[in-house]
Amino acid sequence: MVFTDVVVRHHRISVIAAVVFLTLVYFLVRPAVAHAATDGETTFVLNTFAFLLWGVLVMWMAAGFTMLEAGAVRTKNASMICLKNIGLYSIAGLAYFFVGYNLMYVDVANYGGFIGSFKLLYGPSPEELALLDGDQSAAAAVIESGYSVMSDWFFQMVFVATTASIISGALAERVKMWSFFVFILILTAIIYPVVGAWTWGGGWLSEMGFQDFAGSTIVHSTGGWAALAGVLIVGPRLGKYRKDGTTRPTPPSNVLLVTLGVFILWLGWFGFNGGSQLALGSAVDAVAIGHVLVNTNLAAAGGVVAALIISRPLLGRTDLFAGLNGAIAGLVSITAGPDITQHYWAVIIGAIGGIICTLALKLLESVKVDDVVGAIPAHLFAGVWGTLAVAIAAGGDIVAQIVGILAIGAFVFITSLILWKVLDVVLSLRVSAQVERLGQDTAELGLEAYPEFVLMPEEHDEDD
Amino acid sequence: MVFTDVVVRHHRISVIAAVVFLTLVYFLVRPAVAHAATDGETTFVLNTFAFLLWGVLVMWMAAGFTMLEAGAVRTKNASMICLKNIGLYSIAGLAYFFVGYNLMYVDVANYGGFIGSFKLLYGPSPEELALLDGDQSAAAAVIESGYSVMSDWFFQMVFVATTASIISGALAERVKMWSFFVFILILTAIIYPVVGAWTWGGGWLSEMGFQDFAGSTIVHSTGGWAALAGVLIVGPRLGKYRKDGTTRPTPPSNVLLVTLGVFILWLGWFGFNGGSQLALGSAVDAVAIGHVLVNTNLAAAGGVVAALIISRPLLGRTDLFAGLNGAIAGLVSITAGPDITQHYWAVIIGAIGGIICTLALKLLESVKVDDVVGAIPAHLFAGVWGTLAVAIAAGGDIVAQIVGILAIGAFVFITSLILWKVLDVVLSLRVSAQVERLGQDTAELGLEAYPEFVLMPEEHDEDD
Amino acid sequence: MVFTDVVVRHHRISVIAAVVFLTLVYFLVRPAVAHAATDGETTFVLNTFAFLLWGVLVMWMAAGFTMLEAGAVRTKNASMICLKNIGLYSIAGLAYFFVGYNLMYVDVANYGGFIGSFKLLYGPSPEELALLDGDQSAAAAVIESGYSVMSDWFFQMVFVATTASIISGALAERVKMWSFFVFILILTAIIYPVVGAWTWGGGWLSEMGFQDFAGSTIVHSTGGWAALAGVLIVGPRLGKYRKDGTTRPTPPSNVLLVTLGVFILWLGWFGFNGGSQLALGSAVDAVAIGHVLVNTNLAAAGGVVAALIISRPLLGRTDLFAGLNGAIAGLVSITAGPDITQHYWAVIIGAIGGIICTLALKLLESVKVDDVVGAIPAHLFAGVWGTLAVAIAAGGDIVAQIVGILAIGAFVFITSLILWKVLDVVLSLRVSAQVERLGQDTAELGLEAYPEFVLMPEEHDEDD
Repeated sequence: MVFTDVVVRHHRISVIAAVVFLTLVYFLVRPAVAHAATDGETTFVLNTFAFLLWGVLVMWMAAGFTMLEAGAVRTKNASMICLKNIGLYSIAGLAYFFVGYNLMYVDVANYGGFIGSFKLLYGPSPEELALLDGDQSAAAAVIESGYSVMSDWFFQMVFVATTASIISGALAERVKMWSFFVFILILTAIIYPVVGAWTWGGGWLSEMGFQDFAGSTIVHSTGGWAALAGVLIVGPRLGKYRKDGTTRPTPPSNVLLVTLGVFILWLGWFGFNGGSQLALGSAVDAVAIGHVLVNTNLAAAGGVVAALIISRPLLGRTDLFAGLNGAIAGLVSITAGPDITQHYWAVIIGAIGGIICTLALKLLESVKVDDVVGAIPAHLFAGVWGTLAVAIAAGGDIVAQIVGILAIGAFVFITSLILWKVLDVVLSLRVSAQVERLGQDTAELGLEAYPEFVLMPEEHDEDD
Repeated sequence: MVFTDVVVRHHRISVIAAVVFLTLVYFLVRPAVAHAATDGETTFVLNTFAFLLWGVLVMWMAAGFTMLEAGAVRTKNASMICLKNIGLYSIAGLAYFFVGYNLMYVDVANYGGFIGSFKLLYGPSPEELALLDGDQSAAAAVIESGYSVMSDWFFQMVFVATTASIISGALAERVKMWSFFVFILILTAIIYPVVGAWTWGGGWLSEMGFQDFAGSTIVHSTGGWAALAGVLIVGPRLGKYRKDGTTRPTPPSNVLLVTLGVFILWLGWFGFNGGSQLALGSAVDAVAIGHVLVNTNLAAAGGVVAALIISRPLLGRTDLFAGLNGAIAGLVSITAGPDITQHYWAVIIGAIGGIICTLALKLLESVKVDDVVGAIPAHLFAGVWGTLAVAIAAGGDIVAQIVGILAIGAFVFITSLILWKVLDVVLSLRVSAQVERLGQDTAELGLEAYPEFVLMPEEHDEDD
Repeated sequence: MVFTDVVVRHHRISVIAAVVFLTLVYFLVRPAVAHAATDGETTFVLNTFAFLLWGVLVMWMAAGFTMLEAGAVRTKNASMICLKNIGLYSIAGLAYFFVGYNLMYVDVANYGGFIGSFKLLYGPSPEELALLDGDQSAAAAVIESGYSVMSDWFFQMVFVATTASIISGALAERVKMWSFFVFILILTAIIYPVVGAWTWGGGWLSEMGFQDFAGSTIVHSTGGWAALAGVLIVGPRLGKYRKDGTTRPTPPSNVLLVTLGVFILWLGWFGFNGGSQLALGSAVDAVAIGHVLVNTNLAAAGGVVAALIISRPLLGRTDLFAGLNGAIAGLVSITAGPDITQHYWAVIIGAIGGIICTLALKLLESVKVDDVVGAIPAHLFAGVWGTLAVAIAAGGDIVAQIVGILAIGAFVFITSLILWKVLDVVLSLRVSAQVERLGQDTAELGLEAYPEFVLMPEEHDEDD
């Protein structure tokens, strides 16, 4: 595998075939000495196993988002966040199986690099099915493909779920469950796959040289733009921005679970970025993945420390919530280029990401945009920064980066805005003021998050 | 490795030896070309590493059960659930080391396929010990065995712990700790190993063609039957079923931790099912594991969505707890045959599992069986369904499946019933009414789960 | 890789080179038969991947310590523990990148085996950079090095973070945040790397034959000694030891999260001990790792069961907190020699560790040392025991073990004592009595851990 920010995810079979061919030639020339490259089947097994293991770590991020968000909202809406998050993970996986994957990866070149196939369902190749049925003659073709087809699907599926997870937190405490689920269904079946096709599917942005190793823009900004559109349509929570111009503080209701969620995300991000090398079957891949994990950790650490330090002058206190969001922002920032070889750049990129996130938290508040968990600062703002940082730190094409950011941003934001608006008109997007005051857990679910605990009476606010 | 629902777990050395032999022949015939199969030592390393890594994920399910159960019980019994769960995981591991593994896997054929060896302790092979001592001449024999002996033990050990974990939740809030631990000791030392020997140990059920890839019946129904027997002996919690025929609602006391527990279980299940391929050292194994993980995820997603949709008409609300149990039920359902190649079947099997579980939750309530966390619907009912589904979706032998379900069910249920009864007579199984009202945390452990939080006064109930 | 308690972690390139050479010879002699060893590139990939995956598991321990500690402290200090833990993990990673790693591993022999290089930053080898740039001629040199340079850094980095994590819990509820962070910075940049250089860096203790496979002494006792020094300087919490000689009980404020933390640590420990084999690329490594994971699990289980049983006579009740600390103590105890081949020894070592920990919990209380989470009993006392146990169970050199324990203990304890004292004088170490009574969350962070929950009024105590 070439060690670059691989833009064409799925169509690298030819590269692998070439590697396999060269390996064969090598053995014919020096038959009796040791291998200079992992043999084909081992490569296949390692690539496939890596997709699956890293994918399992990324799946874990769904739990991280759930804990982060359910710990960040008011107690009266925490069960609803749990429901939305396990629901969105399930819907995303099904939508990507029935529609999304084909739209993102299959025959993108046939449709001008703008979209893939509308075929339903995704499944294994005929050669793989033959091999599983015991037909050993199919083995060579399977091995030459480089990795198992469904292992790739699995890895890509957990990415689309991550995009979806970003949204639920921003819109928490006021969006109706079923309307939200319909949005997620269309986002994961169509919107994300389309922008994915442009780059990872081998479409027009990849042709142009746009680089986004693991998805600062494709995954995180996409989630951030969709969240921003939703927040603008649905409006802030009742009483969040008071008539007198002040902002009602809404600190996390369970700080320990927010912290747990951030640790889960940090852990899962090793799979998110490490797996995006898309291969493990050679020394160069292994070295590259090592760099990716080191940079991922350094960027997150830089984000935490920078956000903690800057929070003191900026927010008037060393702010844990800023530090936690700083970790996320550091991680998002490095995601477009975690394969850089100058590791101190990762610290810088992450630290700047953490600072941008903390500033953006304040900015959104000042323009009265109500993002409950800070998803837009951490995923959208830091995602844009990270995508630009690739050009700065690793010598990418800055024009291609800007085009990619703008094109994906415009597409996702506009389609999301329209979709949220349509949902608002057709299904109604926002719960009634009465439900919002009572909390979605009691009013909509009939299941309080902590039914046996005595809670503080809610602070009374005339603007509610 | 053959790609089927491998019924003979441990005695596949001969298969591996055959593969190794054929590989050798291959190299003698085409010595100077590339490998058509991963070489022996790499296969050994990959198989062993896979057992260990997947096993680590399955171990994590112990934490998932703990969070699910401790979040589901009344606050006054949550510490006790923590203690029971870390205790049962420890006891299961020790019992399986001292007694259980030999009983399940060693010399089962010598005892008519009904039970294995009564030898104490389990340990590495002489060849492995020699190799570790530096005797390179032992390497060939070790490599031919296909995987490290203790890595297999580790993987099987976390399975027996899973079986044990299922029980603590169903019986929560009223069973005495030490009586419970004695039951777990005997279950994991003897009862589970015996039914395991019948199939995975190469015993009579495997001879008959019974298929249970990762244990819908052997692990999950076994846990479910043992729990059902316990619930029948110990009876419902005080006041759960009122004299007027109504049921007292006992919603989870900490919904966030229940949700976290389900995410942990979902994650761990990738190891549970993926590891049950029992090999990683060839392309066909890698492809198969990819299928297993995809199906596992699709079935869980199907279970969540189906349970959420059906809960509305059935329970009168979109029920998060039903959705969470739907995830578990979907996972249990696919566990008997996660290697099916038509992936849409996984969605169907999981969805039906989710519906069955939701119906069974209602059914148990109507017959006044008090299963605190819904373990019996999710593990026993969905486990039976999943075992039958193999025959439907993948063409297994329906007669063998039914015989397996009935034989294992009868053996586990009857021996458990007797054991619970004996424990009730000898040690006493149930805490006093006073302890039950006060809660086991204060009365038995002297350690409240949340000692600094103010709790609601418990609802007064004349039937208590 | 040799299968022993590898004392020289980093300078094993020559060993690998020898293995590679012998492999080459082997192929020249028997060219057309099967491999007797995984070929070089596969070995490189497997070794590197193992470092990364095991390292990811060890990183997860940071979350485990956070949950354990944040659940163990008073609610009024739980946010601060979250902040300290995510902060210390970040600082440790940065300090080890900028200073620590070079000090621990580079050119230790040049400085008499006492300390490594003072060079700043750490990074990939020129050969790896060339390979990443596409220079295939560099591949051979990279592969011969045995593993990717940064994958090793990653694995060692999470170890230093573990050492740091041990301290925050012991000193909780009264140490100022920024003073604590300065201590962590110096510990992870200098103190830990120095003692690490003595053994794993190939320094004088490794020359002497001191064995500490994964760090019972180097990691856990080091953390414990640093914590003990801090606890002695900063003193007990207000009101913990009353004037009348009694001790105020301070049970965990959130038992479920303490339990979750212990499960996380148990899981992460598989990476901690398993990864310390430092290789995966041969059958003997795979077998050894299997033994390590089995022993790790058996020792933890032994620790739990022994602590639960002994807690009854010792503490007057079956004590969950003792059982949880017993798990940690069992894990710490086996960490110096988890590669023993007689697995029953692991049960014994872990059980004794659990008993020692429970006794030490009582001992510390009786001498009025206030360790909030029991870190010193679990990490220091059990660490010493585990380091001695290697000599007992696996035939190590008892003199070398005692010298190692004493030398590392003296160095860490004395430097920590001085550092804590300097910090106390320069920055002030302890919060004011007013802040301590109010809690650090409100007084220092302005962020309560559970702001919507009603808490019990704190018990009034004249000694406060």
